[in-house]
Amino acid sequence: MSKIQKAACIGGGVIGGAWAARFVLAGIDTTIFDPHPEAERIIGEVMANAERAYEMLTMAPLPPKGKLTYAASLEEAVAGADWIQESVPERVDLKRGVITQIDAAADPQALIGSSTSGILPTDLQRDMKHPERMFVAHPYNPVYLLPLAELVGGEKTSRAVLEDAKAKLAPIGMKGVILNKEIEGFVGDRLLEALWREALWLINDDICDTETLDDVIRYSFGMRWAQMGLFETYRIAGGEAGMRHFLAQFGPCLAWPWTKLTDVVDLNDELVDKIAGQSDAQSGARGIRDLERIRDQNLVGIMQALKAGDAGRGWGAGKLLSEFEQHLWSAAPAPAAADVTKPIKLADFRVHPSWVDYNGHMTEYRYSQCFADSSDALLRLIGVDMDYVSAGHSYYTVENHVRLLDECKLGDALYVELQLLPSDGKKLHSFFWLRRAADNAVVATCEHLMLHVSTAEGKTVPPLPEILAKLEPLIAGHASLPVPGGAGRHVGQKR
Amino acid sequence: MSKIQKAACIGGGVIGGAWAARFVLAGIDTTIFDPHPEAERIIGEVMANAERAYEMLTMAPLPPKGKLTYAASLEEAVAGADWIQESVPERVDLKRGVITQIDAAADPQALIGSSTSGILPTDLQRDMKHPERMFVAHPYNPVYLLPLAELVGGEKTSRAVLEDAKAKLAPIGMKGVILNKEIEGFVGDRLLEALWREALWLINDDICDTETLDDVIRYSFGMRWAQMGLFETYRIAGGEAGMRHFLAQFGPCLAWPWTKLTDVVDLNDELVDKIAGQSDAQSGARGIRDLERIRDQNLVGIMQALKAGDAGRGWGAGKLLSEFEQHLWSAAPAPAAADVTKPIKLADFRVHPSWVDYNGHMTEYRYSQCFADSSDALLRLIGVDMDYVSAGHSYYTVENHVRLLDECKLGDALYVELQLLPSDGKKLHSFFWLRRAADNAVVATCEHLMLHVSTAEGKTVPPLPEILAKLEPLIAGHASLPVPGGAGRHVGQKR
Repeated sequence: MSKIQKAACIGGGVIGGAWAARFVLAGIDTTIFDPHPEAERIIGEVMANAERAYEMLTMAPLPPKGKLTYAASLEEAVAGADWIQESVPERVDLKRGVITQIDAAADPQALIGSSTSGILPTDLQRDMKHPERMFVAHPYNPVYLLPLAELVGGEKTSRAVLEDAKAKLAPIGMKGVILNKEIEGFVGDRLLEALWREALWLINDDICDTETLDDVIRYSFGMRWAQMGLFETYRIAGGEAGMRHFLAQFGPCLAWPWTKLTDVVDLNDELVDKIAGQSDAQSGARGIRDLERIRDQNLVGIMQALKAGDAGRGWGAGKLLSEFEQHLWSAAPAPAAADVTKPIKLADFRVHPSWVDYNGHMTEYRYSQCFADSSDALLRLIGVDMDYVSAGHSYYTVENHVRLLDECKLGDALYVELQLLPSDGKKLHSFFWLRRAADNAVVATCEHLMLHVSTAEGKTVPPLPEILAKLEPLIAGHASLPVPGGAGRHVGQKR
Repeated sequence: MSKIQKAACIGGGVIGGAWAARFVLAGIDTTIFDPHPEAERIIGEVMANAERAYEMLTMAPLPPKGKLTYAASLEEAVAGADWIQESVPERVDLKRGVITQIDAAADPQALIGSSTSGILPTDLQRDMKHPERMFVAHPYNPVYLLPLAELVGGEKTSRAVLEDAKAKLAPIGMKGVILNKEIEGFVGDRLLEALWREALWLINDDICDTETLDDVIRYSFGMRWAQMGLFETYRIAGGEAGMRHFLAQFGPCLAWPWTKLTDVVDLNDELVDKIAGQSDAQSGARGIRDLERIRDQNLVGIMQALKAGDAGRGWGAGKLLSEFEQHLWSAAPAPAAADVTKPIKLADFRVHPSWVDYNGHMTEYRYSQCFADSSDALLRLIGVDMDYVSAGHSYYTVENHVRLLDECKLGDALYVELQLLPSDGKKLHSFFWLRRAADNAVVATCEHLMLHVSTAEGKTVPPLPEILAKLEPLIAGHASLPVPGGAGRHVGQKR
């Protein structure tokens, strides 16, 4: 897979900083140049939001973070970078100047993406010596979570560069979407601008206030569009007769006076006051940081819900998340040979917002989830992977005994340690401790029994030799450890 | 709470049928009149979709379904109804005639809502004798899942009627949003129409195809809008400086040529062919029924994810779902006095799409979730409710022993039976069987131990007398039952 080796961000505000977060969290060393006096503070806040979001987003192994460096000059920042992302303020002369400067300083092979939300790439690449490697990569806020980047080439951009950019975005969890032609505002912002103008009229004319308008969106088509977009949604609305029927049915509306499209609203002081006042009434009780956290948690939840879509195959942004996780797993280094003279650390967890009850405590069955995920980690450790399972063998859990010893709170970091109990491999008997990372206290234990089965025959059989070869040294090594205090007990047994 | 007693649906296509499904699933007897020869088939399909979606949507107790009746005439349908919903085709003369006919036949107090997506209520109520009770209640497809109904009054509509309609929609899980003024297309369809016209230009001008346009929406602002809508999202984009800053920053775009708003696209045969062809390429591999199911599962997942939002308090449609569930719980009849001479049936489950692995089997920890939910049901049964917990006492789970005996598949209906083991109430020791409804086979068992605690003192104490009064007869009754075969065992113990 085509990968970015070293990234540079020129301009480090909310957009540039979030690009940097994407790169760094994907393990890519990144250099930022931004002369703004508060640049480090702003980027630091964005980075903290991004890290919190990623901890909730996935249990897949994130790579070691890339190194984040603040450069003293644009030239220093772009040196050695193979992806340079420009995110300076939205003025064509300023952007063109910066991009021309990047072009002069950077490796001629380096890709140069602009975060512009509407300026034509042809206008930006005008003065470049190597314009064929410059394109628009227009992201959406928050860039560290929303996967879209609209990829738009100018007159001098090479198609191969757009394809390469798209390929390089996938390993950082982004979806590059290549447009056929350049146009001001590209696709997303044109759609947004049309809706935004109409929204301004509705507020201006007192049809509703900002909260009502937001409610209309989020209780209806907002949820449709989070998964399918416009045309696929309308295809369903057309029913069995399909898209053609839908167009025939709704086409006439185009002739109706249903929008104020032919006028542009005057965004004068009065209208600005009205909107700002209504927005304060709607959302002012919460600070921006609070709203950002809520937004990010909701986005994470929506992506995780979509990951379960299409009968577990994943849908939309959830399918993308699933592919990103597969990439993370395949890119993760093989576990080091375990030290079999002590319990083995297997898996890390973080108490996710959807894991807690109204008291902020982790729900009972999430303890079981940690142990179930840990037994999956044990199977990966001994070589029971997707290929082994597809070939007809697997381990099935037959029983487990969980003791809950302490509460876990939202955000707590947890980890699981494993001790194998005497087992012949056909039976796999293990004991897990769930510990809190902050103080290593045991918050729960689980005694767990799996059986190795032939899925075709539907009966218990010994594991294949390559699995036994990995499992037996672990079992032998752990045989000399003391029996865990909670093992072999039944429910309610006195200590 | 103000409730609909009997509903009538005049017009039973995709929209009218889905209104009927909302009513019936909320326990409201509903009569439909639709002369279309295939009305019963269409409504039956919508009803099946709605029932499947509700099974996934909530574990809260749905009321017994209302009775669905097909009437031979409009007059027969509206007789005795206190909410009449008109959903006939979108022609002002047709709708006005039907509403005038409803007005003449219905109880003068009955509310009359129109599903029109854009006609002014003033134009619809023109010929009514009791126009003050007529309004637009504009829903969004699929009506049985998306909660929004835009409530719009005409010149003769009483404000009290709009408030009453809003109150009556809440118990059926809908969010009535009252607009200040009537306007063609209301709020939602004006926003949609503006965006739709722009989308048609983008396809017409070959900037992108329908799949790319949908990807642009669903990988970016679609997920933002599913939770927050337009203005709250932009408030965050404005950062600490807030909405006023955002408007100042983005206001100038209004003067830029970023949309084709001033033109209306010609939806001629060529453009229809282009869109229909691209849509086939994008979505044609799946049938409409398949897409509907995927859409509904995704909507359910998004709503469940949002229910966990705002640190478990719920956000947007998820908060609404939570309120709907609280209503269902409070409206559910108190459990009948249990027959204590046998195990007690406690809870029903359905294997949800997010519960299965890639093989379509229920994931290990979801068994534990069924048992944890069942122990919650046991607590409700003995009077441990929110009030009891808020007052400072609760039961904490300390251990459980789960045996997995059989696989469960997507969609399987399951239920749990309980036997109380000897307990003093301070300890609450119980044994659960998880059974498959189709054949009553035991698919898992759980031995479970809870302790009663004073949350302030942080120590084990006896439960209050009112709890003991409910608990002791159950324990005494179950004392004569044989000890369950799986109880008192440790992991790996031979049978």
